[in-house]
Amino acid sequence: MQALEYVRTNQTKFQAELEEFLSIASISTQPEHKSDISYAATWLRDRLLIAGFPKVDVMPTPGHPVVYAEWLPAGDDAPTILIYGHYDVQPPDPLEEWNTPPFEPTIVGYDIFARGAADDKGQLYVHVKAIEAFKETAGAPPINVKCIFEGEEECGSPNLEPFVRENADLLAADVAVISDTHILGKEMPSIVYALRGLTYVEVEVTGPDHDLHSGSYGGAVHNPIHALCEMIVSLQDEDGRITIPGFYDNVQELETEERAELAKAPFEREKWLREAGVSTDWGESAYTIVERTTARPTLDVNGIWGGYIQPGAKTVLPSKAFAKISMRLVPNQDPVEITQLVQDYLVEIAPPAVTVKVRDLHDGECAIVRRDSPAMQAAFRAYTEVFGKQPIFVREGGSIPVVATFQRVLGIETVLMGFGLPDDRLHSPNEKFHLPNFYKGIETAIHFMRFLAKP
Amino acid sequence: MQALEYVRTNQTKFQAELEEFLSIASISTQPEHKSDISYAATWLRDRLLIAGFPKVDVMPTPGHPVVYAEWLPAGDDAPTILIYGHYDVQPPDPLEEWNTPPFEPTIVGYDIFARGAADDKGQLYVHVKAIEAFKETAGAPPINVKCIFEGEEECGSPNLEPFVRENADLLAADVAVISDTHILGKEMPSIVYALRGLTYVEVEVTGPDHDLHSGSYGGAVHNPIHALCEMIVSLQDEDGRITIPGFYDNVQELETEERAELAKAPFEREKWLREAGVSTDWGESAYTIVERTTARPTLDVNGIWGGYIQPGAKTVLPSKAFAKISMRLVPNQDPVEITQLVQDYLVEIAPPAVTVKVRDLHDGECAIVRRDSPAMQAAFRAYTEVFGKQPIFVREGGSIPVVATFQRVLGIETVLMGFGLPDDRLHSPNEKFHLPNFYKGIETAIHFMRFLAKP
Repeated sequence: MQALEYVRTNQTKFQAELEEFLSIASISTQPEHKSDISYAATWLRDRLLIAGFPKVDVMPTPGHPVVYAEWLPAGDDAPTILIYGHYDVQPPDPLEEWNTPPFEPTIVGYDIFARGAADDKGQLYVHVKAIEAFKETAGAPPINVKCIFEGEEECGSPNLEPFVRENADLLAADVAVISDTHILGKEMPSIVYALRGLTYVEVEVTGPDHDLHSGSYGGAVHNPIHALCEMIVSLQDEDGRITIPGFYDNVQELETEERAELAKAPFEREKWLREAGVSTDWGESAYTIVERTTARPTLDVNGIWGGYIQPGAKTVLPSKAFAKISMRLVPNQDPVEITQLVQDYLVEIAPPAVTVKVRDLHDGECAIVRRDSPAMQAAFRAYTEVFGKQPIFVREGGSIPVVATFQRVLGIETVLMGFGLPDDRLHSPNEKFHLPNFYKGIETAIHFMRFLAKP
Repeated sequence: MQALEYVRTNQTKFQAELEEFLSIASISTQPEHKSDISYAATWLRDRLLIAGFPKVDVMPTPGHPVVYAEWLPAGDDAPTILIYGHYDVQPPDPLEEWNTPPFEPTIVGYDIFARGAADDKGQLYVHVKAIEAFKETAGAPPINVKCIFEGEEECGSPNLEPFVRENADLLAADVAVISDTHILGKEMPSIVYALRGLTYVEVEVTGPDHDLHSGSYGGAVHNPIHALCEMIVSLQDEDGRITIPGFYDNVQELETEERAELAKAPFEREKWLREAGVSTDWGESAYTIVERTTARPTLDVNGIWGGYIQPGAKTVLPSKAFAKISMRLVPNQDPVEITQLVQDYLVEIAPPAVTVKVRDLHDGECAIVRRDSPAMQAAFRAYTEVFGKQPIFVREGGSIPVVATFQRVLGIETVLMGFGLPDDRLHSPNEKFHLPNFYKGIETAIHFMRFLAKP
């Protein structure tokens, strides 16, 4: 295929361009880098124009701009994909831990080291080069393509959802594609097909209406820290199963076939324990560690505080105690419904001497993609073609909020077509991107569009 | 009796002297009041000389000085008492809440308002005037008297125990007397005969060796906050009884007679609930609220912290969680032994996936005074004589560290001969001392010495 040929003969050129992109210090959280952000956006705009997009816009938001590109050469009946990526990067601190300067891309062996190499400039650029390959060899890609590249992902995408909402017609597509995750290993392609949702609450337990002296009142006043501990312990059984009534009612149980698929991913318990820094694992014994951390709903206390927490001793019996509690949700748990269940249960189990307030801090919907959709099947075949083996379908324990945004606002599913590796050190010093994955990524994107055009 | 007569005819003079004493802003915690502290010490020295003490010294310590006085007119066979008090006061803040300036003593009705009025200048001065009354009428007190008045009580008496240890021979006595507590009411004399001890530990629970992302590890790693909550809940049963093995082994159980005595103190549950600011009480159902808060050992979490405790949401599965836990002890519980029991138990009940460190922050011994000792009987008779009714023996939930110091270093018990009232607002704005209690206090001290001399 000519497009693949184009990629293979232009690797040096593509690498030089990537180095240029990576030398722009587009740190979105630091105001002093505002001009770098602007420069990264215009640099990207120019590359999209060169790649063949007839329409490219740097669109303002209340924060950093969105780079939008559109090329619809395949007609109304052909599928349209919406490629999402972000051109901003994390701050590079601590600088002294970098072996080479974070914004002077350096190649060591087959890796390119720089801030943003894998997260997300290198992965985003895969798609730009795939389109260019079609333009240079076939005149145009075989499907319709829209791109939305934001500059605020590393500061929580505060303006993305409003932008998507306001431009829903412009962004209309059949499926979204995001390359911002990793595969299991160099020789182990994988596709993330499910992300967990989230509900996050803050609990405030009030005992006495003012701080008391524990010498004068201890033993006859229910300490709100105790009460909170009792309540936290009551949220789970000894096996880690959540005891909130109704919590599991809508959980879509893992089927045998899916469990078998998940078990294909290589997993070494000893290595996992080492990475987690624990002596032993914990939790629902009926599920594997991989299932517990990706496919089962979980509950964690993310923070707790109350009473005297400075150095030394103070004999206070405090008025209040607080905890932040979050639950990871799985399909088909509704975060709003679960928040209500948690709220009701906490109030119900509160000991009689205390009062409880529960505040909803954050909700996030789950995302699960049908593995048999045309886009997922196209991705599956593309990885197989390029890596020489079938990708493993995996679930991811965390959330990628934009996936839920696309699902909610645009009504479309997302294919998480990642090309990173687990040791890319995202957000850490010495971030890198494996160059063979950069080139394989471009080829995978080419095959993906091809298979999507002709299933 | 002439001494009493002297007190009654000199009330106006005594009150004027007390006003002078109270106008010295001897705030021990504020360096800018160092000269006021010195002035209070010399003022007190002069009054002790006037009262007849042949030997009075302002003795230096690494901090503020101790005023020591000694008059041993009764011979070796007569008892010697050691009167303790403190001439320093709490800072008066918040100043705007005072109705009259804190260092301009003001009489409203029968009360004198000033910082230090009851805590402890007014109560300390009771004894100085009692000695003076003997000097002016009988030439000398009927027993031997030593005084130790410190200037650092309000900053935790950092130099008192070393001072007592270094001057143990000088301070040798048969019994100590402290007037720094309150009686139950104007018409309700009482004597505190027991103080609780304390053991205070800090618990550190470590789960993973670094903070983890709860989306990636939650559900398969035992969260140290959960583990800590489980451990805290395991320290007590539902009735509030402490479940640490061996904890109650040496507890001296309350006898029927003592429970009857404690029940004499007036107690209104509704009023207590209002003061505590709670809707209902809690704790060992086999004991009254008064017994639980003064005569039973108790356990409180005084502080807890771990994970993310700033505003907003962060999905961390923390490496560590901490708690400060204290236990009030009763005779004959040994704080060092109990600390060891707690430490062992916490390590024993720690879930397998976490490690636990327990640090001993503070120990304090219990104090209990035999109610049938000659000094306690003399105090009992003295109160009865002056107040016209027998005092009630009560226990105090907190600790007065100097009592344990005297017991440990000098081997003597303390008679807590208080003349304050529960609403004296110690450490708060508008502190006051009830003037009738000032005069009754002097008379009680006179009778006490008389009865101690001739049981």
